[in-house]
Amino acid sequence: MIVQMEIVCIGNELLIGKTVNTNAQWLAKRATSLGITVKRITVVGDEVEEIANAVSEALHRKPRFIITTGGLGPTFDDKTLEGIAKALNRRLELNQKALQMIKEKYEEYAKAGKTKDAELTPHRVKMAILPEGAEPLPNPVGTAPGVIIKFEDTFLVALPGVPTEMEAIFDESVAVLLKKEAGEAMFFETSIYADGIMESTLAPLIDVAMHDNPYVYIKSHPRGEEKKPHIEIHLSTTANDSKTAKDRLGKTIIQLSELIQKKGGKVKV
Amino acid sequence: MIVQMEIVCIGNELLIGKTVNTNAQWLAKRATSLGITVKRITVVGDEVEEIANAVSEALHRKPRFIITTGGLGPTFDDKTLEGIAKALNRRLELNQKALQMIKEKYEEYAKAGKTKDAELTPHRVKMAILPEGAEPLPNPVGTAPGVIIKFEDTFLVALPGVPTEMEAIFDESVAVLLKKEAGEAMFFETSIYADGIMESTLAPLIDVAMHDNPYVYIKSHPRGEEKKPHIEIHLSTTANDSKTAKDRLGKTIIQLSELIQKKGGKVKV
Repeated sequence: MIVQMEIVCIGNELLIGKTVNTNAQWLAKRATSLGITVKRITVVGDEVEEIANAVSEALHRKPRFIITTGGLGPTFDDKTLEGIAKALNRRLELNQKALQMIKEKYEEYAKAGKTKDAELTPHRVKMAILPEGAEPLPNPVGTAPGVIIKFEDTFLVALPGVPTEMEAIFDESVAVLLKKEAGEAMFFETSIYADGIMESTLAPLIDVAMHDNPYVYIKSHPRGEEKKPHIEIHLSTTANDSKTAKDRLGKTIIQLSELIQKKGGKVKV
Repeated sequence: MIVQMEIVCIGNELLIGKTVNTNAQWLAKRATSLGITVKRITVVGDEVEEIANAVSEALHRKPRFIITTGGLGPTFDDKTLEGIAKALNRRLELNQKALQMIKEKYEEYAKAGKTKDAELTPHRVKMAILPEGAEPLPNPVGTAPGVIIKFEDTFLVALPGVPTEMEAIFDESVAVLLKKEAGEAMFFETSIYADGIMESTLAPLIDVAMHDNPYVYIKSHPRGEEKKPHIEIHLSTTANDSKTAKDRLGKTIIQLSELIQKKGGKVKV
């Protein structure tokens, strides 16, 4: 059974090209390795309406998981929870558990001399105002808690945009849930490299190899310059154990390598 | 007038986290600097239905530009033009102009000894099969042409996924069109850095500075570790000339720096 996930990244910095979306790549890689199929990544800006639309559209496609990144902090433009509340048509309310997490963090910071006081200012309390029915997820390395909400058959998880915080919450609270849903399935991948053959000459050979190895997905990525073709050939399969995966990938690599050599190309494993 | 653009990136490698989406960042940065407002970035896999849905949804939001990346090559999983044709409800047809571009490329490659023959195999001809009404855009550094299609008030531009090819076609054929539509407006940005102040303490200061400088957008990005706060403060504005932009940004930086210093923080410009 395929367990689907969508990623929604929130932040103007992504839309003006200031920031490369490494969060999406990290989450996609991690989820894929846990056996989850990422179907779509959406990036929108720091606007309630935009966030609500993106989340609402994702919910309509009924993936098992939606993970958002960004917009959970204390500033005026951290609007993700407002957008999610709007998409879910739920009220925002002060979540006591989240408030307690935030309170403890600032007390700890004040003790360590990192901030003058632990006062719960409106901008700090803001991070504890969650949609009804939400549960906060502890942030081991920052202040804004993550958030999880179940909506119909979808787990909606909101993570901060700061990569260290996003990764820490994911590893501590989210990965285990993904793995549980994905079951035994695991994603296996490897690459080989072909020189001296153009992608258009390689294309029909991939067709043959994929036809003969129906559980293996093969995709070519030209990596060289125009003058000197150099192609990465990425092979992947989803299987319940590594032996099956290795057998499948190995058999495909042997067949494809032979086909490439017959056409005058060189293969590096 | 705000000229809106959406980016649709196509490729399984993005959804499995194999590849960081530098194409989206490059396009977003370039378009923003030309005065265009990027509203959304969508990433989908190499499936006709997924591509058609993403393009169709983007068209419904009526941006002036949609730029797609990926899926124009000779392999079985290059399905972007099929997806676009489906979204537009147009037939695919052999485009003679595109075929001529491809023919000349392979003749050139064969002459240079890069490929054995210039034969127009089905996989090569495939790159010239475009939706009705499409115009090919020359690819200065590869074989697959870019594609431009006008649909109602939207320019739909399809670029290859190989970064050097995507960038070369954009610079040669697309940038001038974006600039023409954007008019005089230009995007200006700069960053300052604050140490010794937490983001939640900085947040109300940004509120004040943004209130007093309505044309400047300010966003804070925590860059330090939990133990040692270090925050990048990014300031941006859209203006018709650089003097106006510099005046706005300079005035805001002075005010915000004073506010941060009063709270015990240090500012580096």
